Amino acid sequence: MEQYKIVIDLLGSDKGPETVLLGASLAIKEHPELFITLVGPEALILEKKDELSLDMSRIKIINASETITNYENPYTGIMNKPQASLVLAMKEVGKEEENYAGMITAGSSGAILMGSFRFLSDENKTRPCMAAVLPNGAGSFTCLVDTGATIDCTSGQLHAFAKLGSDLMKKMYHIDNPRVALLSNGAEPTKGNHLVKETFPILSEDKEINFVGNVEGNNALSGDCDVLVCDGFAGNQILKSTEGMAKRIITDIVVLSKKKNRPEFMEVVQYLMKTYDISALGGGILLGTRKIIIKARGNSDERAILNISKMLMNHASGEAVFSNKERQEALN
Amino acid sequence: MEQYKIVIDLLGSDKGPETVLLGASLAIKEHPELFITLVGPEALILEKKDELSLDMSRIKIINASETITNYENPYTGIMNKPQASLVLAMKEVGKEEENYAGMITAGSSGAILMGSFRFLSDENKTRPCMAAVLPNGAGSFTCLVDTGATIDCTSGQLHAFAKLGSDLMKKMYHIDNPRVALLSNGAEPTKGNHLVKETFPILSEDKEINFVGNVEGNNALSGDCDVLVCDGFAGNQILKSTEGMAKRIITDIVVLSKKKNRPEFMEVVQYLMKTYDISALGGGILLGTRKIIIKARGNSDERAILNISKMLMNHASGEAVFSNKERQEALN
Repeated sequence: MEQYKIVIDLLGSDKGPETVLLGASLAIKEHPELFITLVGPEALILEKKDELSLDMSRIKIINASETITNYENPYTGIMNKPQASLVLAMKEVGKEEENYAGMITAGSSGAILMGSFRFLSDENKTRPCMAAVLPNGAGSFTCLVDTGATIDCTSGQLHAFAKLGSDLMKKMYHIDNPRVALLSNGAEPTKGNHLVKETFPILSEDKEINFVGNVEGNNALSGDCDVLVCDGFAGNQILKSTEGMAKRIITDIVVLSKKKNRPEFMEVVQYLMKTYDISALGGGILLGTRKIIIKARGNSDERAILNISKMLMNHASGEAVFSNKERQEALN
Repeated sequence: MEQYKIVIDLLGSDKGPETVLLGASLAIKEHPELFITLVGPEALILEKKDELSLDMSRIKIINASETITNYENPYTGIMNKPQASLVLAMKEVGKEEENYAGMITAGSSGAILMGSFRFLSDENKTRPCMAAVLPNGAGSFTCLVDTGATIDCTSGQLHAFAKLGSDLMKKMYHIDNPRVALLSNGAEPTKGNHLVKETFPILSEDKEINFVGNVEGNNALSGDCDVLVCDGFAGNQILKSTEGMAKRIITDIVVLSKKKNRPEFMEVVQYLMKTYDISALGGGILLGTRKIIIKARGNSDERAILNISKMLMNHASGEAVFSNKERQEALN
């Protein structure tokens, strides 16, 4: 049986290190081939190990109690807090001799980006980007990149993001020739802001990318492309506004069900929660680094940590994370 | 009884001039105080006048058969087609002695913007912007501006849009001190792309605007602000991606209802269609011109034309278009 090693940063989650530790314990129970390096308060891990029946032969602990918060400057945080759990986790996952599959953290996005520059840059010094792989209307997945790691981008950066997103969809979702599109305000090649107009010919000319042109916001997640490229500002708007709309509609139906005393409408709510539950699929994926880093959402529960652990193992083993068929079955 | 005069451009709609004419006939029947100048094929109007029982004493016809399409350059279209219905309509609505309340067109957005520069600029030569007034999660309305008229913007333009949006919400929706927010990738004042960071202090310092700070995409339409300011690229993404998500969820429920043979789920669909039917509220509103221009969507039906006619009359009379109470009742 092949073995997989991953690093989990216990700190930085809104729900506290206990929840992340619980998620790690579920992963290690479910996967006998998994080895986890936990970076966080050693005392807490030792206190909980019996209660969680942790198999300590497959767990390594790196003690850490310091964090870099969302409220501090990511650069100074990374430089001035060498004992922060995120810094220790990144140094650990970067050790080539350890051969880790990747790491999971719920820490500050800015600090993850800065830390990845400092400790996990690849040989080309690629600027990492944050991808979100989202369920689309065609029953498969679309990789949205960048979702907010780089707010103001150059056309060269968008070109790099297109390649990184394309590689991810090949490797993680087994799509042979991923269709790459540019987010724009119109489908025609003449539409777009300065950045989009400058990037369009660059993507058109790169024969290693299967560029299919511009896609508008209403089709961002319709399944017309496998990779949707945009700057971090626009990507953040797409990610958050579609999620905001889904939440609002679900809330509306809950209110309607109560007000009209129609409990059967809650079945629609259950269905939508399953279909549009982005968090269950894991968080953002940092691309362009030597080791894959998955940022769990700040409010991730133990199931999310378990799911992300599986994603890392699948990525390392070359197995597809979800096939279209699996997704269709999950929705039926 | 006070009289109101409006101009309706019959051409440019995906559904053809017959549908726009039908909408105009509904408006004139419902509102004895309304006078309409129809700009379009005279032969068609005369052919249909008996069938539609048009009161010709309140209708003026300006014959036009030429249009500026979405596929031609808006600037050359406006300059080289003096007989286009849009050009004739704009010249007509601009006649001060006629005292029009405004105009309706389903024509090309680019041509509307160009034509408004040429024929309807105000004394300050304000750059017009396209606003969308959208139902928000708090049961009232949020004015999103710009939604795509100016794709790349300066901070000075965003400042102008903030004032125009604020004026609209005061005049058309009777909000005393509209809360103005900037669309950003985080709520903190330090978040944003270059444009947002540059605009933030300008809006903060303008005492005539009730600036409440940054709003993220997930709260774009939650009702935290009355006016949401952004460049046309980002506004287009918010407008289209939220609409795309709403349509997708509604389609999903229709499929679920059929597949599971649960016809009662269609009541949820009916409710959502009513709540999220943006088109029934009219189209985009061009602000910053001497006369208000409402762009009906290309696929507007006759009810949309009727609703927009009412909006123009309300705007002229100083009556609120929709009160919060009316909206709440409409949803019950």
